[in-house]
Amino acid sequence: MKNFSYQNPTRILFGDGQIAAIATAIPTEARIMLVYGGGSIKNNGVYDQIIAALGDRIVSEFSGVEANPEYTTLCKAADQAKQDNIDFLLAAGGGSVIDGTKFIAAAACFEGDRWDILLKGGRNIEQALPFGSILTLPATGSEMNSGSVVNRSEIKAKMPFGNPLCYPQFSVLDPTTTLTLPTRQLTNGIVDPFVHVIEQYLTYPVGADLQDRLAEGILQSIIATGPKALAQPDNYELRANIMWCATMALNGLIGNGVPQDWSTHMIGHELTALYGLDHAQTLAVVLPANLRVRKQAKHEKLLQYAERVWNITAANHEGTDDDRIEAAIVKTEQFFIDVGAPTRLQNYNLGDEAIAAVINQLERHKMVALGESRDVTLAVSREILTAAL
Amino acid sequence: MKNFSYQNPTRILFGDGQIAAIATAIPTEARIMLVYGGGSIKNNGVYDQIIAALGDRIVSEFSGVEANPEYTTLCKAADQAKQDNIDFLLAAGGGSVIDGTKFIAAAACFEGDRWDILLKGGRNIEQALPFGSILTLPATGSEMNSGSVVNRSEIKAKMPFGNPLCYPQFSVLDPTTTLTLPTRQLTNGIVDPFVHVIEQYLTYPVGADLQDRLAEGILQSIIATGPKALAQPDNYELRANIMWCATMALNGLIGNGVPQDWSTHMIGHELTALYGLDHAQTLAVVLPANLRVRKQAKHEKLLQYAERVWNITAANHEGTDDDRIEAAIVKTEQFFIDVGAPTRLQNYNLGDEAIAAVINQLERHKMVALGESRDVTLAVSREILTAAL
Repeated sequence: MKNFSYQNPTRILFGDGQIAAIATAIPTEARIMLVYGGGSIKNNGVYDQIIAALGDRIVSEFSGVEANPEYTTLCKAADQAKQDNIDFLLAAGGGSVIDGTKFIAAAACFEGDRWDILLKGGRNIEQALPFGSILTLPATGSEMNSGSVVNRSEIKAKMPFGNPLCYPQFSVLDPTTTLTLPTRQLTNGIVDPFVHVIEQYLTYPVGADLQDRLAEGILQSIIATGPKALAQPDNYELRANIMWCATMALNGLIGNGVPQDWSTHMIGHELTALYGLDHAQTLAVVLPANLRVRKQAKHEKLLQYAERVWNITAANHEGTDDDRIEAAIVKTEQFFIDVGAPTRLQNYNLGDEAIAAVINQLERHKMVALGESRDVTLAVSREILTAAL
Repeated sequence: MKNFSYQNPTRILFGDGQIAAIATAIPTEARIMLVYGGGSIKNNGVYDQIIAALGDRIVSEFSGVEANPEYTTLCKAADQAKQDNIDFLLAAGGGSVIDGTKFIAAAACFEGDRWDILLKGGRNIEQALPFGSILTLPATGSEMNSGSVVNRSEIKAKMPFGNPLCYPQFSVLDPTTTLTLPTRQLTNGIVDPFVHVIEQYLTYPVGADLQDRLAEGILQSIIATGPKALAQPDNYELRANIMWCATMALNGLIGNGVPQDWSTHMIGHELTALYGLDHAQTLAVVLPANLRVRKQAKHEKLLQYAERVWNITAANHEGTDDDRIEAAIVKTEQFFIDVGAPTRLQNYNLGDEAIAAVINQLERHKMVALGESRDVTLAVSREILTAAL
């Protein structure tokens, strides 16, 4: 196990009716800016619950944060926050709204060119507005971590940043808010957390037995309850479990003391920036191909994944180690397909031309040595994309 | 899944050499009281590392905190802290030293009779000195939670208390500090976390699939690495894994949104208070008997435990559900015995007279309705102890 330092200060308020708890979670004197997206919170009752809970606090609003939050939109929000002397942000929505709110929180306090925040990955953030979140679309884990991804369409860039000042003070996870989600969003909420776990788990062994088993536990839980949650859209318990899985997949815990990959995400980000695929769709496309291309380097953990997550063992599956590894990758692909996320570029009407374009973008963004061993060069990324055609 | 609110602010500094990190984790201007036990930290190099890391900060010391920390000792420490105008406590030791430091932190700020802190279970704590810990004996999980147990020998009482003000600001987990532990302490560090998980897991199902799988992951990890850690006392990786298991077993995470039992602990506390058994020894005695006596109420989770943790399934084990449950309990008993914790009262030279004495104590301490359904009456506790003879 590698050395690590871990602290996660976010308070989780989990369960039916917990939106009301923001009444005590936000300081009474706070000047609040409520940040949200396209307005679905006005249709599903979340907005009304928030306004009721905030009572007579001063609340301004900023709506229109996009599905991949746009730099220019967020800068406008930061301007509004400064102008209105806002001292607390409240995000209501999914990962994009919460990611966007993290940027607004930092940008509202930042002196100088805000683009520098993204160029420096957030290391230059010295101050940020405090904020909380009300999660309505579980997937990204943003509600309990300090990371964020911001989009700048004009230059086709999707840029991650993070800073300990960007942990939400609290996040409300009320599974009832997810009962009205469209199927596609629920699909994303199954695939995205699954791949978050894989990025932190499927690398090479470092003797971190407990982290492995916790990661396997989250994967098993997503596999056991994800398809059921899709099939039973009114089932609170299943939604609750998927919601908590999504948070636990990326709150830092399972990544403590282990190598991490993230090449699937970096390649996937370019597919979203170029072609507008949902983030989770890009992961469903890139991951299986990535595992196939790098199966030698990931040999030991892939065998462990096959055995512990998919119960593919030497005893019950004929053939070589490689056969069992391939069987586990096929299971993974089939799982993505079953929950509604096709796993090939062609399923999204993309072909060879997309490969060249993605490689070009990776090069521009200096993503030339990805993965847990920094050996995913542009040539390897090309191989992965080719395997995903 | 039940509703829950969860926040754990403790920073974990994990790994070889991390004691040095207290140099930045403790404020430069702090007036520190170093709290420790019998002085083993002076023999294993921990004390020297602490003093070196603290540099020219003002440090006073309080040593002699007992294995089950004594109320009167801790009150003396609180007096010393007040007298020396201490504003930061640093615990160095195992769960007893950290538990004791939590009480000192609260008692040093408490107006009125400090015994009230224990009578009220800590709910009346309004202020506490900030503190950090350097863990040298993983077992209790005190390093990343806000609970504590204090002993008062004169009245044979072992009293738990807790308060959010009693989370350590940081805890250093350096597995090298555990390499010199006596076998008995390592045994305790395997059995205690195992039973902590069981108390939060083996109750009745509430649809919390993820929490179940995380709990099962910790149990599997303790089973996989505990005996090896005993057999290979110089193996850093194994010690590191057991250390992290012990913390994760009781930092609140797996207990979120699920019913909890804790009757094994409450009965066990009385055995320690009366006869001086190690805490983990009492758990090894009480747990198997407890599971046998309450196997109907715990039927579903016991079957799940048998299948997922011990791989005892209908397919590979003949007989009824009850046969498989009994097989899982036997496996649990054998595991405790294998790691050095005998599971019968007679192994500790206790017989019928102990049962009467424990029941008497439970009654005095109002422990008359224990367990996840509050149905462990004195009669049930007596049945459990009888089954443990």
